[in-house]
Amino acid sequence: MTLPFTIQAQAGAARFASIHTAHGDVETPAFMPVGTAGTVKAVPQDILEDLGSENLGAQIILGNTYHLYLRPGHELVRKLGGLHKFMSWERALLTDSGGFQVFSLSELRKVSEEGVSFRSHLDGTSHLFTPERSMEIQIALGADIVMAFDECTEHPAEKERARQSMEMTLRWGRRSKEYFEAHKHEVPWSESHPLRKQRAKDGAPAVLHESHTAPALFGIVQGGMYADLRRESAERTVELDFPGYAIGGLSVGESRAKTMEMIAATLEVLPKDKPRYVMGVGYPEEIVQYAAMGVDMMDCVLPTRAARHGLLFTSEGRINIKNARYAQDQSPADPKCGCRVCARYTRAYLRHLFVSAEPLAAVLNTIHNLAFYLDTMRTVRHAIRLGDLSGMLSGSVSLA
Amino acid sequence: MTLPFTIQAQAGAARFASIHTAHGDVETPAFMPVGTAGTVKAVPQDILEDLGSENLGAQIILGNTYHLYLRPGHELVRKLGGLHKFMSWERALLTDSGGFQVFSLSELRKVSEEGVSFRSHLDGTSHLFTPERSMEIQIALGADIVMAFDECTEHPAEKERARQSMEMTLRWGRRSKEYFEAHKHEVPWSESHPLRKQRAKDGAPAVLHESHTAPALFGIVQGGMYADLRRESAERTVELDFPGYAIGGLSVGESRAKTMEMIAATLEVLPKDKPRYVMGVGYPEEIVQYAAMGVDMMDCVLPTRAARHGLLFTSEGRINIKNARYAQDQSPADPKCGCRVCARYTRAYLRHLFVSAEPLAAVLNTIHNLAFYLDTMRTVRHAIRLGDLSGMLSGSVSLA
Repeated sequence: MTLPFTIQAQAGAARFASIHTAHGDVETPAFMPVGTAGTVKAVPQDILEDLGSENLGAQIILGNTYHLYLRPGHELVRKLGGLHKFMSWERALLTDSGGFQVFSLSELRKVSEEGVSFRSHLDGTSHLFTPERSMEIQIALGADIVMAFDECTEHPAEKERARQSMEMTLRWGRRSKEYFEAHKHEVPWSESHPLRKQRAKDGAPAVLHESHTAPALFGIVQGGMYADLRRESAERTVELDFPGYAIGGLSVGESRAKTMEMIAATLEVLPKDKPRYVMGVGYPEEIVQYAAMGVDMMDCVLPTRAARHGLLFTSEGRINIKNARYAQDQSPADPKCGCRVCARYTRAYLRHLFVSAEPLAAVLNTIHNLAFYLDTMRTVRHAIRLGDLSGMLSGSVSLA
Repeated sequence: MTLPFTIQAQAGAARFASIHTAHGDVETPAFMPVGTAGTVKAVPQDILEDLGSENLGAQIILGNTYHLYLRPGHELVRKLGGLHKFMSWERALLTDSGGFQVFSLSELRKVSEEGVSFRSHLDGTSHLFTPERSMEIQIALGADIVMAFDECTEHPAEKERARQSMEMTLRWGRRSKEYFEAHKHEVPWSESHPLRKQRAKDGAPAVLHESHTAPALFGIVQGGMYADLRRESAERTVELDFPGYAIGGLSVGESRAKTMEMIAATLEVLPKDKPRYVMGVGYPEEIVQYAAMGVDMMDCVLPTRAARHGLLFTSEGRINIKNARYAQDQSPADPKCGCRVCARYTRAYLRHLFVSAEPLAAVLNTIHNLAFYLDTMRTVRHAIRLGDLSGMLSGSVSLA
C-alpha cells in the first residue's frame, strides 16, 4: 500500500481517519480548497495555513493539471522543484487529471481511444492529453495524490453512451496506472522531501515509507447517472487496485437526490479501508451529508468562486453581501464564526468592499468561506469521534 | 497646539520626530499608504499592521474624502462610528480634502468662489464641495488629520492664473479653519477613543490633551510652479496658523527638479516646529531626498498602483515582474528585503501570478512594495538618529 490510511473512529458509515502523505497528515473527512493555477484564488499561503477555528488551516489543497500545464507549464514547475516549492506550500497537494477542465473549458475537443486533443482556451494552441501524458504532467508537478485520467461523461447521457464512456475510463485507468507505477519516483521531491531531510539531519538513515518518496494514484469511478453502471465501474476500478478511489462525473447538472443515489451505489462497492473521494462537491449541507455516508475527501470551487461573487456561507445560511440590507449591519459575516475576517470586519464593511469592486473583497470573502468549510469538516470529524453525526445532519448542531 | 509634534533628532535639515495622534504615535519622516475607499487596495488590515522589517507596520494611512463621500457616504460612515471603526483600523488616519480627486476624476467640474460643483464619476449625479462641506465630511469620517479644502492648480498655468488659484486656496483655507474649529469635536471618536476608555477603566478622570479628543487641521500651500508664489502662499498660510502644513499641487507633470525647487522654496518659510507634508510623492529616491530636505510626511499611490501593474520596487531598482526573464528566477522579489513576500515567494511565482491575472498577484506585490517604502523611511529615520543621511542620498546605503 502506497498511501497509509488510518481510521481512528466511526459513526455509522462515517469515518474519522488520517491520510499520511509525504507532506504531512490529512485528517478526514476533509474538504480540499481548490488552488487552480498554483494559488487558492486571492488567499496568501500563510493565511491558508491557519484558517479556521483551531488554526489548523488547510492540510491539503488541490491543483488543476489543465491550468498548470498551459501556464506556467509543468516542465517549468518541475525544473523549479515541483508545485510545492513553486507556490511555497509544504503541505499535501492533490492534482486532478486535467480531464474535467478539457471537458469544460477547452475548444474543439476530440476524444479518441488514445486520449483527448483540444485547443487551449488561452491561445488556441493544439494539445493532446493521454493517460500517459496526464501522469507525466502530474508527476512533474509533484502532487502527493495523483488522479487517473478519466472521461467525465456528459450529462445527460443515454445509458449506452454512459457505458462506453465508463469503459474508456477503465481502459485509461489501466494505462494511467501502468505509466504511473513506472515513473512515480520521478516526482521532484522524491529525493528531497522534508522528512528525508529531517532524518538526514538527525543522523538517522533515510529509510522511508514509500508514501514519503512517491505519490499515490487514485482511480476514478464513472458511469453517468446509472446506479448499476456506477457499481460496475467501482467493481472493475477496484480490480485495478488503487490506494484510493474517487467518484467523478457528479455535480454536472443532475438533482441532488441523484448525486446522492450515485454516491451511495458506489460506496457500497468501494473498499472501506481506503480513502473515498467525491470530486467537485458541494454546498456545506451536502459535504456533511456525504461525509455521513462515508466519503473521506471532497473538493469544490464553490466557497472560493462564490466568495468572489459576494456569496457568503454562514451558520445562518447563505448571505449575498451586496444586498442593501447589510449596508449598516455591524455584525460579522457570521456571528458564530471565529475566523480572522469575522473577528475583525463587519458586514457593512464587506458590503462596501464588494459594491466598490475593491480587491480586498475577494480576499476577505474567500478567507471566510474557506474557514466556514474547514470548520464544518472539523465539526464533522469531532462528531464522528463522539460517535454521533445525527445532530449535524438534522441541523440541530450548527455547522460552525 | 492641537497636535503634539516632538522632534527627537536632526541630521542637516532632516528631522526624526513623533506626531502624537488620538490613534497612536506616528514616527516621521513617514510614508503614508493610500487607503482610497477605506482599504489600502488588496491588503488586509492585519497585514498592514505588521508590514516591514521591524513589523511596525503602517502607523498612519490616508483615506480619500471624494471616494468615501460618494461611496459608502460620509453619513453612513459617521453613523457606524467613523472610518477607524468602519474599516477596523485603530491607528492614525489622514483624509485629504477631496479637492484633488474632484480635479482629476470628476466630470463637468465648475469652480466658483463658493466651491466646486461636479458630477460623480460613478453615476453622474451632481455634487458641490465647499470648504465647509469638505470639513463636515472629514469630521464625519473622523480622521486624525484633516486637510484644508484647496484648489489644486492645473499644470501648466500662467503666473496670473496660479496667483488667482493661490488666493482662492487661501480664502478657502480660512473658511476651512473657521468651520473646522467650530465643529472639530463632532468627530465620531471624540467621546470614545481608546485612551479615554482606558482612563475611565483605570478610574482616572477622562481629562485628555485636545489631540485626544479632536482632529488637527493642516493648511495647504499652493502657488503653481512659481517659487515666489510658493513662498507667499506659505507665509500667508502660516499666518492662518495651522498645527501642520502641506505642500500641494506638485507631482502634476512638472520635472523632478521643479518639484524639488518648489519644495525647497516652501520649506524655507514653513515653521520648523510643525509637521510638513508633501502630498502625492513619490519614487523611493524622491521620498528620501525630500525627507533629507526636512519633509516629515508623504503619501503616494505609486507603491500600491504600480504593484497592481506588476512593477516592484527593490534595492536593485525597479523590476517589471511580467518580464520573461523572471520566469525561472528563484530569488525573492528583493534579495535584501525581509518582508513576508520576499521571505516566502520567488520572482518566478510572482511572475506566474501576474501573467495569469491571479488576484493574489495584487495582494503580494502590494505587500512587498509597501514594505519597501516603509523600510525605506525606517532606514531614513535611523540615519537621522545617527546624524547622517549622506549615505542614503548618495546611494551608497541601500534603500532596504
